This record gives sequence, structure tokens and C-alpha cells, in this order.
Amino acid sequence: MPSGIVTLLTDFGSSDPFVGVMKGVILGRYPQAKIVDLCHGIVAQDIAHGAFWLERSFGWFPAGTVHVAVVDPGVGSSRAPLAARAGGHFFIGPDNGILGGVIAADPRAEVRDIEIARFRIPPPSATFQGRDVFAPVAAEIAAWKMAFRDVGPTLAKVKGPIVPRPVRNGDRIEAAVVCVDRFGNIITNVDIALLQGISSPIVSIAGIERPLVRTYTDAAEGDYLALVNSFGTIEIAQRDGDAARGLGVGRFAPVVVRAGP
Amino acid sequence: MPSGIVTLLTDFGSSDPFVGVMKGVILGRYPQAKIVDLCHGIVAQDIAHGAFWLERSFGWFPAGTVHVAVVDPGVGSSRAPLAARAGGHFFIGPDNGILGGVIAADPRAEVRDIEIARFRIPPPSATFQGRDVFAPVAAEIAAWKMAFRDVGPTLAKVKGPIVPRPVRNGDRIEAAVVCVDRFGNIITNVDIALLQGISSPIVSIAGIERPLVRTYTDAAEGDYLALVNSFGTIEIAQRDGDAARGLGVGRFAPVVVRAGP
Amino acid sequence: MPSGIVTLLTDFGSSDPFVGVMKGVILGRYPQAKIVDLCHGIVAQDIAHGAFWLERSFGWFPAGTVHVAVVDPGVGSSRAPLAARAGGHFFIGPDNGILGGVIAADPRAEVRDIEIARFRIPPPSATFQGRDVFAPVAAEIAAWKMAFRDVGPTLAKVKGPIVPRPVRNGDRIEAAVVCVDRFGNIITNVDIALLQGISSPIVSIAGIERPLVRTYTDAAEGDYLALVNSFGTIEIAQRDGDAARGLGVGRFAPVVVRAGP
Repeated sequence: MPSGIVTLLTDFGSSDPFVGVMKGVILGRYPQAKIVDLCHGIVAQDIAHGAFWLERSFGWFPAGTVHVAVVDPGVGSSRAPLAARAGGHFFIGPDNGILGGVIAADPRAEVRDIEIARFRIPPPSATFQGRDVFAPVAAEIAAWKMAFRDVGPTLAKVKGPIVPRPVRNGDRIEAAVVCVDRFGNIITNVDIALLQGISSPIVSIAGIERPLVRTYTDAAEGDYLALVNSFGTIEIAQRDGDAARGLGVGRFAPVVVRAGP
Repeated sequence: MPSGIVTLLTDFGSSDPFVGVMKGVILGRYPQAKIVDLCHGIVAQDIAHGAFWLERSFGWFPAGTVHVAVVDPGVGSSRAPLAARAGGHFFIGPDNGILGGVIAADPRAEVRDIEIARFRIPPPSATFQGRDVFAPVAAEIAAWKMAFRDVGPTLAKVKGPIVPRPVRNGDRIEAAVVCVDRFGNIITNVDIALLQGISSPIVSIAGIERPLVRTYTDAAEGDYLALVNSFGTIEIAQRDGDAARGLGVGRFAPVVVRAGP
Repeated sequence: MPSGIVTLLTDFGSSDPFVGVMKGVILGRYPQAKIVDLCHGIVAQDIAHGAFWLERSFGWFPAGTVHVAVVDPGVGSSRAPLAARAGGHFFIGPDNGILGGVIAADPRAEVRDIEIARFRIPPPSATFQGRDVFAPVAAEIAAWKMAFRDVGPTLAKVKGPIVPRPVRNGDRIEAAVVCVDRFGNIITNVDIALLQGISSPIVSIAGIERPLVRTYTDAAEGDYLALVNSFGTIEIAQRDGDAARGLGVGRFAPVVVRAGP
């Protein structure tokens, strides 16, 4: 059953009314919707960045939440609009990889190709399907006016996952930076589960090496540190500083994890 | 009848609690209010920028929505606080042009000069009428505690519209850039209706010329393109790029549209 | 009684989903919560900046609102998680000074050391207690599932207040800039109450001197001015300009107020 909550994750930023009008459309079809901004600061057109945060964040919402994810450089081209049921939640977005990870993570995931004709939707614009397709479909599903199985035909194969996966060889993991957060913390794609069996892991990035510590204050002021962050991946930070600036690294920078002494 | 929704459009940005306290005031008077941030990224004190997005966005909300628009460099001076009923919606804001377009677009628009003494409002500050006047008035109207006709006396004439209007001479339109969006797309004031009768329109800006295409992927990677955007005006974009940076143009830059071959 | 409203004030910015997942946690425990973003633009790790805006803003919300304040460079270290009842509102945050001002302002304030074991909370991460501790505790209090007295044992002493206090000697006040707002207005820590008995106060900053005027339009275009802002403190602005940039001053810059002629 839907929770009544609709989250929005986009690369629309906050300088324009793009997110605002999506909310207007949702409330027009489902006035009781509880709309939450999951994140609108995804790097413009960076599908993997959006997919990473969607995968790591959706589980903090109640089961049955409808998550709309729109990072869509190919809007208006032929990629299909998707609706998926996975991990106890609903997901709406383009078939460009942004939903690939959440779908792949649930072997019982059900994916449907949104059939626009089944909704009472005016002809969508070619450039803003977030407002014209995804928002109204999300509202109908969240309001449970449209049962999930009626959204459109099932789809066997979708694009993605597209978040780069780290490669482990024995006790060595070759990985990459996925994003830098507001504090300059460097977030990698190394999930804690991948560390299993590696004793005293050492994280290398941009010429420095650090063991894993528990929290940001477990380093001297100004020093760099590595830890498993609150979303379950390895992160490199600088105590009271901006690690990304300090180390001069950004997204896609290589990271290596190996067993310590 | 009000929809229960109150939208906020301001130039307050998101670094300060100005929008937050407006919401506190609204909820204090109307706890059931559904408050939506339409946009807070209007360029500081740029009334025309705010008016443009208000005009283009309000129709995506349910009829009866109360839209508060505060871009108000003259706060505390003598301009009147306005409440308007136009296009099936309600609008609240200063009489500085920001509401001029939505009022002018509806020949049956009804405009009232907010009479503060009719509301139970503490003496407003001289510098934040968004919080002290517009927020409480919006709450009272949205809650339908105060009928619209009781807000204050009618006003025959208001300032604006102030969004620059393009000039058409025969098959040639002289227009301007209204704003640049988050993606660097260049948004003009040329409404699609103005193109009527111009065959195969060609858009010129900063030394380049482009015909109208349907969507962003209808250009080669890195190339510029022109299209009618999802808000109904002509826009110049760069495929997978930032057109405003690439062309070195910003707000007020001239744009010409003429008939193609 | 709680108002059902939960506000969030953080230094998390808007580029990441940190605020979004806090809302997911709150709605999971209290689906009817009305969540308001008070401000997420606090300068990273600047506790005093957050404390200043919390102190000046909370009163604009209905009594019984739960305010969550998370500016927490020491997350995961030993500082206690606090819940406080003060000024008719509830406050949740770390014991690092951010709540010191609101607590000190109410002689009848009641402060409790949050005892995590009393809540059904999964083991919190070491790096995101905003999501793992403060959000669920706020939800329980706002939903009135947990009475305030049951949150944990009372605490006699908390850190702070930490917003720098101006010093008055006779008719002279030595003060400081607390923050610069979105418009470049320079906000000081001089509360209007401190001006009592000083005739025709003159404000000095960065080599200029100005008397207090009423509003921004009470200066010639481009000129600097000083006024008591809508939050009750002295502010220096530039008519149609950015005072902080123009004067080259930022936070902590010295400000002097003295009696005028």
C-alpha cells in the first residue's frame, strides 16, 4: 500500500520553479500528498550521482513511498518512462539507468512501462516530462487511484545499474569517488559489505593513506581521515576542513582499499 | 474557493531563515495550509524575473491556490500591498509590477488594496512585509476566514506588467533574454502565440542562428539549438552543455526571430 | 502541547539528501507531522550562526513547535543529545551551544539529556545523529507519543549561549557582525533593547558612520544605511547594493554603536 508520501530527486537545483510546478501537478491530482524534497542538488545531467543517492536514501522513508527520480538529459527522446516496485517502495523515472540500481537490488522487483494513454494526462511537452508525465503518474499511484499493475505492461529489462562498481581482487579493492558532499567530504562507491574479510582496511586516495576510524573527531584538527559513513560507504574527510579541496580530488577520482598490516 | 494551497515565490534564496519564518506565520493562522515553495531563486530584487516565472507557473497549481510573490526592493516605502483574484487563482504581493502580468491577463481580474487594519496583525516591521503582511493575509484568504471582497477596497490600476514584451514587425520579432536557468538554458520572452504566421522561424542570438527543434536531443552533442520550452516561450540551449556560458549571454541580451527560407 | 510542526535548522545545505532522509525518518514515526525547513544555509559547522537564527526565528512559529537544530562538528564524540522546553517551544539538538541561547532566555526552561534507550531507535551511526537520534526523538515528542518528561533525566547545565554578546560601556556598544544575508546585508548582534538610553545612535563599521533609519529606501541609491531589522538587531545595508561586498566586511567584523550629536 502507498504511504501517501511522494519524494522528489532531481538535478533541477533551486533557482527555477521546476520543482515547484511538479508539486502543483501532484497536489492537483492528490491533494493529500505529503511531498518531500529528497534532493535537487544532483550534478546537472549526472544520472549516476542521482542513482547513488536514490539507492542509499529511499530506505529511510516508510514502505510504500513513491520516489520520483528525474535526471533526464535524454528527455523527449525514445527512452521509456518507467514505474517500478522494488524493496517495498515505488519508483518513477526515465529508463536511463537512474532506477537500475534499486531494481537490480530486489530480485522480486516489478517494472512497468508507463502507458501514458491510461492516465488522463494532457499531451506532454517534449522537454519537461518530470512535470508532464512522472508527477501525475506518481500522484495517481500514491493516491492509489491507479493500481500499480495497471500502469502499463511489464518490462523485462531496464538500463543500469550505472553507479560505477568497485572491483575487488583478493584483499585489494579498486574504487572511485561518486560525489563530494556539502562539507567537502569525499564519498566513494565502496559499500561496507565489500570490506568483508579484509583485515584493518587502509584507504588510499590522492597520495595519502588512512585506516578506518569511527567519526570525524577521531583525527587531529586539519588531518584527513577515512570512515564508513552513515549511508554505508567509505568516505574520506578532513577534520574541520574540506577534504575535496584539500586533496584536489573530485568525482571519478580513483580510490584503493587494501588490507592493513 | 481556495484550494488550501499557498505558494511562495521570492528572491530570498535559501541561506537565511526568511522563508522559514513566513511558513511559521502561515501555519500559525492556518494550521492545515499546504505550503509549496514555488521558487526562491529569483535574482535579488529583479521584479521582472519574478513576474515572468509567476505568470508561467501559477496555472500548474489547482484553481483557488493562493500565490504569494515577494520581490520587494521598495519594502517599507509607500507602494500598496495587493491582493488579486485572476485566472481562477489568488495573488498576494506588493504593487511594484510583480503581479501586473497575471492581472493584465485576466480581463475579469479583481484587485484589492490590502487594508492591514482589517486583519489581526501586529504592527508590521518596515523591512519584512513578506512575513508581517503578505504571509498572514495569504493564510486568512487560503483558510477562507477572510472572504476576498473583505480584504480591502478595490483598486482600479496597478503597476505593470513589467516583463519586457517582444516587438513584432511583420515576420520579424525583436525580443530579449528573460533569464538563464540552472542548466544554462537561455529563456526568452517570445511566447509561442507570437510566432503565428511566421513560417519556419529562425532564432538569432549572439551571432548564431537556429531553426526551432522539438527537444534537447535534436542537436549534435555540443551544438546549440532553439526550441519552444515547456513554459511556452522560445529557449536557446546547448546539447549537453551550458548555452549561456558558451554564448556569453545573460539576461536582457537581444534575441531576434524571423521567418526562415 | 505540541503543535504538530517540526522545524529543521542545519548546516546541511541543499546539494545532498541529508535533510530529505531526516524527513523520511520523521514521517515514518509521525505521518501527520508538518515539517518546515527553517534554514539549511547555516555556514558549515558554524554553531553560533545557527544559534543566532534559531533564537531570532523560533517565536514566529506556533507555541508547541518542535525545533530540531543540527550544526554538529562534534558528531559522534561525547557531547550529549539535548531536548529542551523553553519559551513555550521544544528544542532538540546537540549540547554544543546551539541551544544555549534559547535555554538561557527562559528562566523556567527545562532541559533533558536524551536517553536513547528509551526510544525504539536502531543503533545510531557515529556521523549522522540528525537522522538517527534527533529526527526520531523530535517525531516522538511532536506526536506526543513520548511526554517531554520521559525523554531522559534533567540536565542542570548546558553549553552556551555562544552567540557573541556585545559589550556596552556607558553610551558606547562594542559589537560584531554575526552573519551576512542573501542580499549582502550585514547583520549584527546588537539587540534593539541594548540601545535603551542611547540618544540618536550612530553605527560605525569599516570606516563609515550612519544613524539609524527606518527602511532600505531611506537612503540614496548606492548609499549605505543602518537600521533595526525585522529580527530586532542592528543591520547595515546598501540601497540597491551588497553592503558586505561594498564594505569588504564579513562575519566577526567589529561594529561600534555610540550616542549621536
